[in-house]
Amino acid sequence: MPEETDTALKVPAVPAGQAAVEQSLVDTVVASFDQTEDPRLKQLMQSLTRHLHNFIREVRLTEEEWNAGIAFLTAAGHITDDSRQEFILLSDVLGASMQTIAVNNQAHGNATEATVFGPFFVSDAPEIPLGGDIAGGAAGQPCWVEGTVTDTGGHPVPGARIEVWEADEDGFYDVQYADDRIAGRAHLFADEEGKYAFWGLTPTPYPIPHDGPVGKMLEATGRSPVRASHLHFMVTAEGLRTLVTHIFVEGDPQIDVGDSVFGVKESLIKRFEPQAPGTPTPDGRNLSGGWARTRFDIVLAPAGA
Amino acid sequence: MPEETDTALKVPAVPAGQAAVEQSLVDTVVASFDQTEDPRLKQLMQSLTRHLHNFIREVRLTEEEWNAGIAFLTAAGHITDDSRQEFILLSDVLGASMQTIAVNNQAHGNATEATVFGPFFVSDAPEIPLGGDIAGGAAGQPCWVEGTVTDTGGHPVPGARIEVWEADEDGFYDVQYADDRIAGRAHLFADEEGKYAFWGLTPTPYPIPHDGPVGKMLEATGRSPVRASHLHFMVTAEGLRTLVTHIFVEGDPQIDVGDSVFGVKESLIKRFEPQAPGTPTPDGRNLSGGWARTRFDIVLAPAGA
Repeated sequence: MPEETDTALKVPAVPAGQAAVEQSLVDTVVASFDQTEDPRLKQLMQSLTRHLHNFIREVRLTEEEWNAGIAFLTAAGHITDDSRQEFILLSDVLGASMQTIAVNNQAHGNATEATVFGPFFVSDAPEIPLGGDIAGGAAGQPCWVEGTVTDTGGHPVPGARIEVWEADEDGFYDVQYADDRIAGRAHLFADEEGKYAFWGLTPTPYPIPHDGPVGKMLEATGRSPVRASHLHFMVTAEGLRTLVTHIFVEGDPQIDVGDSVFGVKESLIKRFEPQAPGTPTPDGRNLSGGWARTRFDIVLAPAGA
Repeated sequence: MPEETDTALKVPAVPAGQAAVEQSLVDTVVASFDQTEDPRLKQLMQSLTRHLHNFIREVRLTEEEWNAGIAFLTAAGHITDDSRQEFILLSDVLGASMQTIAVNNQAHGNATEATVFGPFFVSDAPEIPLGGDIAGGAAGQPCWVEGTVTDTGGHPVPGARIEVWEADEDGFYDVQYADDRIAGRAHLFADEEGKYAFWGLTPTPYPIPHDGPVGKMLEATGRSPVRASHLHFMVTAEGLRTLVTHIFVEGDPQIDVGDSVFGVKESLIKRFEPQAPGTPTPDGRNLSGGWARTRFDIVLAPAGA
């Protein structure tokens, strides 16, 4: 556990008496959690209180701004339902989701880096064989994805379970359509040498849902709601740390503009090689149009790392 | 304006490389707001980002805890409607409402101190004459309230508008009943010498609504949802700072237990003198039961103070 953060606040423009009144209130609220039975809950509430008060004191939050904050949270609550999660979007665009990933997935040797989970995973995606197709009718350019799953010692991980999911070329995941389709998602298992391959779609950029309060905030702050093009992976194997990550597309201009949820890591940007129409596929398919191929070798950290 | 707060974070148990990854993410998110046109909005979002990330890094927030936080905000959003505001309750019990009041109402000479506004004010309460009754049928012990409104120089403020509102003896404000009653609230105007008087109810303690996520949080942290007994005031007069405050009841045990929204200030605790049945009232009423009386002299700061 880290030592306690320095939450001392410097508000030099405020008279000492006023600063004392404000600090006394912080101390009183922190002390109100002293009787919390669960020590972790106590730590969370007391730290949250300190940081929240420091924010209010630092910016000298006005009552009008406080009202705007309450109205924002209320609107976020009201747009949220079973298929729309505005609070996750808020956490995403403030980088809070990615920071949570970061503190829980400290770098371990050469293990593949993690990134955000996102709201579009479903746990019962169909199984496909090695070399199978995840598209399920989703529109987009076919893309051959292959690689090997190893541990940090370079040993293959036979039978690693690989979940993959992605948006179609119109920027929507299957669950965003009203027709119950299952498309652009599947799971498969690495072979005896840790190798895997499948057909997916070449990822394209799409905006996070931006017709709600989070979208308004992005607009007011001059930010783009668009995510860098990506393909989701979740890889699990016994005795190894579960990896939740994406791969990104080298040359995607959105990487420079800025991924709206801060998920991009240099090591996760992969070359997607465009293939001219007629180029033979690795599995002997005869595709009428162009296709692409990429390689993603996955290194899993030990469990508990 | 205060100078920028020291938001440096100390996480000594985290390897330097990991701390650099985390800090780099904070810097990226902060920079994403650089293009915000409104400088104040930019300051708010960048400060909020820094404090939010510092909280996550300090406590090493787990993904399970992050999920619990999202679920909490979602539940708060779903219980919130026109007559129930869970986000205001949340702000209240974290002391954030009171801290916002504090930074916007710096002490000015001998001016009366401010406290929380609360969610139960309505802007069109009936007018009563001096010495009138605000109860409107609300149940409770009658209480004669009197005082003088002056400025910080001791000059009376003739015609000061005084809004008063309170819960009945069952702990409910009129707006919490389904029958559209108007009770326990009114406004009146100070006379030519700044004097005012009215009949209200002796305040009694009551819990904030605690059947939602905020109530669950209070229970999990061993905190009482009960507010110290109080009577609300809002006093306005031209050229003077609007005062939003309460008076509290000397001897109320809840003051020592802790007001659930941290509204109590020593200077606002008043003696409510119990009067035996039959004691003549100041305005010559003949009350069958006991009553109480209290005095609250109000001092308004100059506008802009």
